[in-house]
Amino acid sequence: MISHMGRTTRPAAGPRRVRDPTVHQAEILAAARDCFSEFGYARATIREIARRAGVTHGLVIRHFSTKEDLFVASMPGLRDLDDIVIGDPTTLPERVAAAFVERMDAAAAADPIVALIRSAATNEKVAVALYQSMQHRSSVAFRRVVKGRDADNRIDMLNAILIGVTFNRYVVRVGPVASMPPKRLVAQLARELRHILFD
Amino acid sequence: MISHMGRTTRPAAGPRRVRDPTVHQAEILAAARDCFSEFGYARATIREIARRAGVTHGLVIRHFSTKEDLFVASMPGLRDLDDIVIGDPTTLPERVAAAFVERMDAAAAADPIVALIRSAATNEKVAVALYQSMQHRSSVAFRRVVKGRDADNRIDMLNAILIGVTFNRYVVRVGPVASMPPKRLVAQLARELRHILFD
Repeated sequence: MISHMGRTTRPAAGPRRVRDPTVHQAEILAAARDCFSEFGYARATIREIARRAGVTHGLVIRHFSTKEDLFVASMPGLRDLDDIVIGDPTTLPERVAAAFVERMDAAAAADPIVALIRSAATNEKVAVALYQSMQHRSSVAFRRVVKGRDADNRIDMLNAILIGVTFNRYVVRVGPVASMPPKRLVAQLARELRHILFD
Repeated sequence: MISHMGRTTRPAAGPRRVRDPTVHQAEILAAARDCFSEFGYARATIREIARRAGVTHGLVIRHFSTKEDLFVASMPGLRDLDDIVIGDPTTLPERVAAAFVERMDAAAAADPIVALIRSAATNEKVAVALYQSMQHRSSVAFRRVVKGRDADNRIDMLNAILIGVTFNRYVVRVGPVASMPPKRLVAQLARELRHILFD
């Protein structure tokens, strides 16, 4: 995890270090998450993201083609999803629920999924494109373990319950789901995800 | 169901009819739904709602105290919830799923829940208050049939999945849940609601 303090206090015109592409990518993604949550998707610019990451506009484009691609890539849940899906299928629901709650409880205010939910209201077309990319990545990841004719329906119902929990716990922040201790929520959510995906 | 055509084409200055309070209430609620979905919660005014319902501002207040109360009362799902919950508990999940999909498929664009999701992004404080009222009414209704220590958690997880399905199917409108035939969605949703509430 890149420290926000570290990034923002680094002098803008310090001595040039040679950094490998992975570091660049991580800094760009961290800057993107900051900008999307601070300005929302529509008002965040690649120029500002590049500035905060300490790289050129061109380098951001070289790594992530478009703002949309950058947005989707900057969503922590989606980046980690492939790693989470790999492994023992019998504990998949627990891993997904734990990763989701842990990530969101740590920094929901800075999470692009919250920004996405917010922009669905104010900038529908953009939200639709982003949401579709998100669904697609979720579907590709889960398709490796969820089989059967109705796999896509099950996976999208999983998307729905995660969006709803996000809405209750991290956007509106009221009610039992919002105030449940993390462990309890992970257990209840895992139970529902297991049913949605496999039962 | 009050016809929108009927309401909007009725002459504003026709002969006064004596109408019973139930009729007034129904017309106010229909006008409220129109206004909330057209203007959003924040910009909808009781004055405009009264005008469209053909009643006085004072009568709206007499029936529904505040704009918040009027908003919650105008949500079709919540008004009908008590009726839906009463009845055979074994078919409750199917009744809830069917009522939800039927109502939303018929007129999602004019549904206050969609307006509420939209205003969560633009006017958080208002959305919080409304959302809390909604959760409270949902909890009171379902508490009559869902028992046990974790009843409130289960009921709020039901709220979450309905919010998520609303988001996928009626706000963003992309993906498998959005494009599923109603019957199929009712069946899948009922299955999940049964698990969430009772298993």
